[in-house]
Amino acid sequence: MQSDNNVLEKLSAVSKLAAFNQWLGLEVVSAEPGAVELHLPWRSDFGQYSGFLHAGIIGALIDTACGFAAGTQTERLLASQYAVRCLRPAVAETFVVRGWVVKPGRQQIFAAAEIYALGDEQRKLFAVGDAILVPVAA
Amino acid sequence: MQSDNNVLEKLSAVSKLAAFNQWLGLEVVSAEPGAVELHLPWRSDFGQYSGFLHAGIIGALIDTACGFAAGTQTERLLASQYAVRCLRPAVAETFVVRGWVVKPGRQQIFAAAEIYALGDEQRKLFAVGDAILVPVAA
Amino acid sequence: MQSDNNVLEKLSAVSKLAAFNQWLGLEVVSAEPGAVELHLPWRSDFGQYSGFLHAGIIGALIDTACGFAAGTQTERLLASQYAVRCLRPAVAETFVVRGWVVKPGRQQIFAAAEIYALGDEQRKLFAVGDAILVPVAA
Amino acid sequence: MQSDNNVLEKLSAVSKLAAFNQWLGLEVVSAEPGAVELHLPWRSDFGQYSGFLHAGIIGALIDTACGFAAGTQTERLLASQYAVRCLRPAVAETFVVRGWVVKPGRQQIFAAAEIYALGDEQRKLFAVGDAILVPVAA
Repeated sequence: MQSDNNVLEKLSAVSKLAAFNQWLGLEVVSAEPGAVELHLPWRSDFGQYSGFLHAGIIGALIDTACGFAAGTQTERLLASQYAVRCLRPAVAETFVVRGWVVKPGRQQIFAAAEIYALGDEQRKLFAVGDAILVPVAA
Repeated sequence: MQSDNNVLEKLSAVSKLAAFNQWLGLEVVSAEPGAVELHLPWRSDFGQYSGFLHAGIIGALIDTACGFAAGTQTERLLASQYAVRCLRPAVAETFVVRGWVVKPGRQQIFAAAEIYALGDEQRKLFAVGDAILVPVAA
Repeated sequence: MQSDNNVLEKLSAVSKLAAFNQWLGLEVVSAEPGAVELHLPWRSDFGQYSGFLHAGIIGALIDTACGFAAGTQTERLLASQYAVRCLRPAVAETFVVRGWVVKPGRQQIFAAAEIYALGDEQRKLFAVGDAILVPVAA
Repeated sequence: MQSDNNVLEKLSAVSKLAAFNQWLGLEVVSAEPGAVELHLPWRSDFGQYSGFLHAGIIGALIDTACGFAAGTQTERLLASQYAVRCLRPAVAETFVVRGWVVKPGRQQIFAAAEIYALGDEQRKLFAVGDAILVPVAA
């Protein structure tokens, strides 16, 4: 994915406004119109009861990657629904989260996202998901 | 909801094992077979870019309430999928998250959850969602 | 559910415009602002490979009940997404499908639906689901 | 997609057992382990109130393509949940429905599907969706 520096800077700035994204330590590593890639280095804070990545964090990553992918093309958005499919227990030093717009729109933007481990050439998926984002007036 | 002290203590103990639940400060306030009520006091850490409760946290609450509702009846579980519908921007001093089992099962447990503000007698819903939990061997 | 005759007649007329609803033989038995009840008498056409109600028909019922519930309050709508949870194999002489609006809105209407057997006082649910409907210009 | 004749024949035979699939006139045109392609020629029976493909049929196609993709690898299955995202009104002479397994499993199989018009080289998607299938004992 070839990254667009203007889009990347804009998203990184938006991410800094979101307190929860800051706590996560989520890094926007590349962005182009309609697609983003985020990295999340593991911290023990993120665990569920047996130490895997908490499904709540998985959902937060899916939601954020979908929202950021839509955010490359639309200024202000709210997530109206999202769904998360946890394919296998997730453990990695750094998680890669890819989000992309499936269908842009004036009323609704459909996006999807997937999560795998950084450095895994086969991209074995831990989780996939999708979201509907709704543009809101400024 | 009349609470069952044994179930409540068990869930509170499980919640203490989950690092992310501890960070959230999620409190299990009542539990009975097949249903739980959780409280989450607001912290500014939980905000998205315009200060509402981050959809990622909303999902974490839905996922956790569904998992805990199922956890009142089944020992070890993993979330296999969940979905979140963000009905309106969520702002409250304390969020109430109710989770309940819709259909128990040996292979899959279907659960649902809803979020509203503590003290709101009308229970105006901020978000609703559902999850499928899968029992895992110990 | 107390039915509103004007709403009921309007929905029955809309249902007659939908060729697939006519094939299903779906009957709108009651309607009030924000809620509907539909009945579907079993036909062997509706079976999946082992003779239960086909999950595709289950989805069509969930989608239609959600759309009709929203249609009691909003003139023209399209389904933008729906989800179906098949709780147990569905067999009945007549299926009851209840749909209701969870949250009305100008941009999106959130609705939910459930299916059980006519005459089952316990309302043992075969399936539940939800939909997002989007108002469209006439 | 290179088709496997044994898998294709098996699925076509299963489809003939499902009365609703027969009514739809759904044709299994190719199949390989983990993936299928189905064709559905348009009939006016399939319309919603303004003449587009009924969202209920869209769901039935998503559900069936996911189930058949899983059915290339697993003998007996039930759909436990599925979700449908209707990206744009669907009109075509013949619909192509592609289904594939995202993650096989002993307890659950995750699958996804998409729908576009036959002959559309750009594969402009009308709808996408996903399903969880559960193996059942014979």
